[in-house]
Amino acid sequence: MSDAARFAVIGGGAWGTALARLLAQRGGEVAITVRRAERAAEIAAAVERGALPTGITATATAAEALRSAAIWVLAVPVAGADEAIAAAAGSTPDLIVNGAKGFLDDTLRSVADLARERLRVPVVTLSGPNLSDEIHAGLPTAAVVAGDDPNAVARAQTAFAQANFRVYPSDDPRGVEVLGGAKNVIALAAGMSDALGLGTNAKATLLTRGLAELTRIARHAGAQERTCFGLAGVGDLIATCSGSGSRNHRAGAALAQGTAANAIPGTHEGTRAVAHVAAYARRHDLAAPIAKAVEAVVSGRASAATALATLLARPIRGEWCAEPA
Amino acid sequence: MSDAARFAVIGGGAWGTALARLLAQRGGEVAITVRRAERAAEIAAAVERGALPTGITATATAAEALRSAAIWVLAVPVAGADEAIAAAAGSTPDLIVNGAKGFLDDTLRSVADLARERLRVPVVTLSGPNLSDEIHAGLPTAAVVAGDDPNAVARAQTAFAQANFRVYPSDDPRGVEVLGGAKNVIALAAGMSDALGLGTNAKATLLTRGLAELTRIARHAGAQERTCFGLAGVGDLIATCSGSGSRNHRAGAALAQGTAANAIPGTHEGTRAVAHVAAYARRHDLAAPIAKAVEAVVSGRASAATALATLLARPIRGEWCAEPA
Repeated sequence: MSDAARFAVIGGGAWGTALARLLAQRGGEVAITVRRAERAAEIAAAVERGALPTGITATATAAEALRSAAIWVLAVPVAGADEAIAAAAGSTPDLIVNGAKGFLDDTLRSVADLARERLRVPVVTLSGPNLSDEIHAGLPTAAVVAGDDPNAVARAQTAFAQANFRVYPSDDPRGVEVLGGAKNVIALAAGMSDALGLGTNAKATLLTRGLAELTRIARHAGAQERTCFGLAGVGDLIATCSGSGSRNHRAGAALAQGTAANAIPGTHEGTRAVAHVAAYARRHDLAAPIAKAVEAVVSGRASAATALATLLARPIRGEWCAEPA
Repeated sequence: MSDAARFAVIGGGAWGTALARLLAQRGGEVAITVRRAERAAEIAAAVERGALPTGITATATAAEALRSAAIWVLAVPVAGADEAIAAAAGSTPDLIVNGAKGFLDDTLRSVADLARERLRVPVVTLSGPNLSDEIHAGLPTAAVVAGDDPNAVARAQTAFAQANFRVYPSDDPRGVEVLGGAKNVIALAAGMSDALGLGTNAKATLLTRGLAELTRIARHAGAQERTCFGLAGVGDLIATCSGSGSRNHRAGAALAQGTAANAIPGTHEGTRAVAHVAAYARRHDLAAPIAKAVEAVVSGRASAATALATLLARPIRGEWCAEPA
């Protein structure tokens, strides 16, 4: 990048620092804004010892960082998005890149939608098979940046793209956002299946039926069909369901081991998203057997073993017959 | 099953014995025909000690077993299919269930096609995310049976279907057969990627682009689009690319470690299928970068590291732009 662009990354977890790393590796000056001063000090120490690239700073007092940044990157948990956006509303960037995956309500409104409503600047969403630890390790990764405005998409693409982080443009933000949030529900089921020892055949079946379920819901919510079969759809689904590198897979495993959803540490967006996805499916009469099974486990109404056994014993119709909602 | 149906399973490897197990668990009388008397004795010993269900016998002299069976199941490697079918041609069953995944030539002619031409009885193909070891372990599994004749499909479905082996009917045998053979090529690439330590993000990207490549080729070859996104498409792809339970994944790992394709022990259909898939793509001007990269490694023209690095460095177009062939 010729000019050292200034970025603010809102959220200093593994995902926020991974996105900051990518921007800094492209020469950007990146301020990470966090809630706790202790976390800001940890990030500063990581930069100091070379674990994060120079060009990254961190602060628990966001106002100045936000004011001087041309591009904001949202990397907060969905539960904290409203507060983070309200706190940021005093200044205005040129562009917001949303990296949060999940929903604010039963219409499957995304964090990007919230930012669009509140801040009235172009908002694009970055998504794909992007496990944070692997981005920190410099492993090859591909992502999608989706938005309605091609110039905004191109600007975000330029900010992030590098040899080991390939960025594809998309004109389907709604599809990318709905799939990014809803796929975590399938990841919970995959984590349960793995923890119960059901094997690869069962998990592949769950992902196949899960992809059909995601496609049905995302299409109804306005997604382009091809987005479902791309990096932000099946690609993200496969990565998130692969194993322990994914928080939602780990949370599914914890649920299967009998831990209550609210007792699982860390951020696991799927346990929050499942109620929104299941409610959306109910309201619009869409078949969503996996979301409903996961909802029953997350709400404590069924054990993971019972819920998955019920799923696997559904009556056989044609693979593509309309299923009862 | 009320009457004890008689089956002949041609091929006594892990896959043939898994299919025989399923038929015997449904009450069928199953003769497994093998080439070597030693293998017949091993299978008989496995039945004797309870490792395979009673109802299974094994023989190295196939004629009587084939003559008295109403349904034949083909579970031979593609390389042995011609000989096996020629040897069987003296008698005629009511129905053949093909379980082989691969191609006889550059038109992507399947083992089922060969059986249809030679034996002139209904042939259906069984496919899906069906790792043999997990079927032997009784883990929950789903499959597709595909054929042009709904009665033949229903008969095969009845023979195999049970609580832990759910069988979905399909009317797209061409799609199921092309995908079943071609997905092994992507599994070789996935095995290479894992052996090189490229991580989950890279593998999910490879599977996503691989699914697009498979879909392009299978659609051109006559597949229904939805078959690509079902159990015999993306489902089988995910299972086969998951890890060491898949022979083709293991073969890809061996290639990445520098073993020549013809020095890798066992059956790995992908190393044979890749030339057919790449030739098909060339002849019909279809983009197939993964098949071509895998072909270069299998033929010894490129290292796995170079081939995968080249794949990951292809110029970025839109995710769905037409790629150059």
